[in-house]
Amino acid sequence: MAERELIRKIRERYHRVDSMLFAGIGDDCALFGNTASNPWMITTDMLVDNVHFNLNWHDPYRLGRKSIAANISDIAAMGGIPKFILLTFCFPPAVKDEWLEQFLGGIGDMCSEYGCAVIGGDTVSGNELSFSVTVVGTSAGVSPVKRSGALAGDIVFVSGCLGSAALGLKLFQAGMSVEELTLFHLAHLDPSPQVKLGRRLAEGKLVSAMQDLSDGIATDLAHICHESGVGAILDENLLPMEENFSEYCNALQLDPTAIQLKGGEEYQLVFTVPADKETSLHGLRKEGFSLYRIGEIQEGQGVRLQRKNGRIEDISYQGYEHT
Amino acid sequence: MAERELIRKIRERYHRVDSMLFAGIGDDCALFGNTASNPWMITTDMLVDNVHFNLNWHDPYRLGRKSIAANISDIAAMGGIPKFILLTFCFPPAVKDEWLEQFLGGIGDMCSEYGCAVIGGDTVSGNELSFSVTVVGTSAGVSPVKRSGALAGDIVFVSGCLGSAALGLKLFQAGMSVEELTLFHLAHLDPSPQVKLGRRLAEGKLVSAMQDLSDGIATDLAHICHESGVGAILDENLLPMEENFSEYCNALQLDPTAIQLKGGEEYQLVFTVPADKETSLHGLRKEGFSLYRIGEIQEGQGVRLQRKNGRIEDISYQGYEHT
Repeated sequence: MAERELIRKIRERYHRVDSMLFAGIGDDCALFGNTASNPWMITTDMLVDNVHFNLNWHDPYRLGRKSIAANISDIAAMGGIPKFILLTFCFPPAVKDEWLEQFLGGIGDMCSEYGCAVIGGDTVSGNELSFSVTVVGTSAGVSPVKRSGALAGDIVFVSGCLGSAALGLKLFQAGMSVEELTLFHLAHLDPSPQVKLGRRLAEGKLVSAMQDLSDGIATDLAHICHESGVGAILDENLLPMEENFSEYCNALQLDPTAIQLKGGEEYQLVFTVPADKETSLHGLRKEGFSLYRIGEIQEGQGVRLQRKNGRIEDISYQGYEHT
Repeated sequence: MAERELIRKIRERYHRVDSMLFAGIGDDCALFGNTASNPWMITTDMLVDNVHFNLNWHDPYRLGRKSIAANISDIAAMGGIPKFILLTFCFPPAVKDEWLEQFLGGIGDMCSEYGCAVIGGDTVSGNELSFSVTVVGTSAGVSPVKRSGALAGDIVFVSGCLGSAALGLKLFQAGMSVEELTLFHLAHLDPSPQVKLGRRLAEGKLVSAMQDLSDGIATDLAHICHESGVGAILDENLLPMEENFSEYCNALQLDPTAIQLKGGEEYQLVFTVPADKETSLHGLRKEGFSLYRIGEIQEGQGVRLQRKNGRIEDISYQGYEHT
């Protein structure tokens, strides 16, 4: 059973009306609380050795950081503030105490940087290294930004260059030797969730829909389109890339645009802005936030890409899916 | 690194003062919320194949039920009401869709019986079957019962017979053939968390400390003693056992008392009652709740057992520990 089918089944089968539940499965976080105007956010993820990370290049300190970052990013994507972390680990007996210390150090530093406390967990000795992380965030009185609010005419933005983390992974996989880790390697090893930007966008009521880039924009924007009942068109000329991105892609014989569209685990934000609010983003740009306009929302469904040669193709759900 | 040492490190290192956090690591659940008088409860557990369950005898339906029950039990142990569930699964490719359907069916039925909604999760394909379950509960205006409130002179109670689930596991492990599953087998396969009882005890302010029996009373009561700064003495004559418990133990050449003290995963409640409130428990007994007095809280530390021959021995932390 594919992951998407399984999640669909669970979502249909275990749906339940509850006066304290404001959003269940289907967005970056679920929303619950005593009042709908000030809900708590909660999200969980599992990371498994050789599926989500590779210990040949992922050092334990950065792996600890990334385990937390991936979940904090879901809170950022709704404009919330991450507060509490619960962790479950399964460690094979071969994992050394020193490795564990560094891994815990990474978790601790990430929690400190984002103001989170670890409030629960479980540890088990098994055969396969894996962790699950649950993060609870607060909306602190600001309405969470859902995936479902995009309207035709809204403008699509991303908060950073596309494909950097995906290229970093490809560089590791190809065993390409470098004198020091490039920003692409680091984007894969140690991503930064966009909590401050997500919060500012939510507080300012500047965005109609938002989510984080965990599976590649071709898939993540398709989720926004599906939940909002709209379509989107992106302009290949506008997809932002870091300096030297094309050169590294060419060296690996990779299509730069494909990596930008399909690359997972970027943990940037993709969001839609009503056209009359676009000028309100200037203030954020002045403060140093990167905001790239890459396309717009249209009537219809699915995500399409206008190529540099003018051809338009459907790219919905072509992003990365962990098998 | 042993589980207890790892948890101690995490507890010390990631402790953080937060105005929305009322209890972190160290009790059945963590407590958070906007007001201390009405906190949310949250707890998480991980279950790994061949560590926490054995697919040779654990059918997928009951395994789904038990995955949820184990966590709901932590909410029961603080007197809360379980509300929301988040699940992460790691499935090997060999797991068949039919198995998965039955497993999800067990999860769904357990959630329905206890009024819970599944609000989030993640699925991954890996080599080892494992799940993590996070449960959020509400205190709904009733102060959560902590482990730390026991005082010398309080009476120690348990909510059901001891060792039944542990004996069931031993029966499976011994491959003892039976015409049909005994209540011991079922206590292991499909335990019932004591949500109603926990809630009634908390609402009536009848208990000074409480926790669920997940690692055996020798360990679980030791946690209460440690957190409360007291000791406890149990009377071997008072440890409740199901009919035929001794006979089955004898057939397997097991010491019945050892199984009662050390057996994990019972998911009954152990709680302490101030002596002047003991008569208030009559009402609960009349309603059909089983409440067994097994000992009392004393000055000092640790858990001791008075044997039938009058000898007293220290049994602190002699319960089951998953390696």
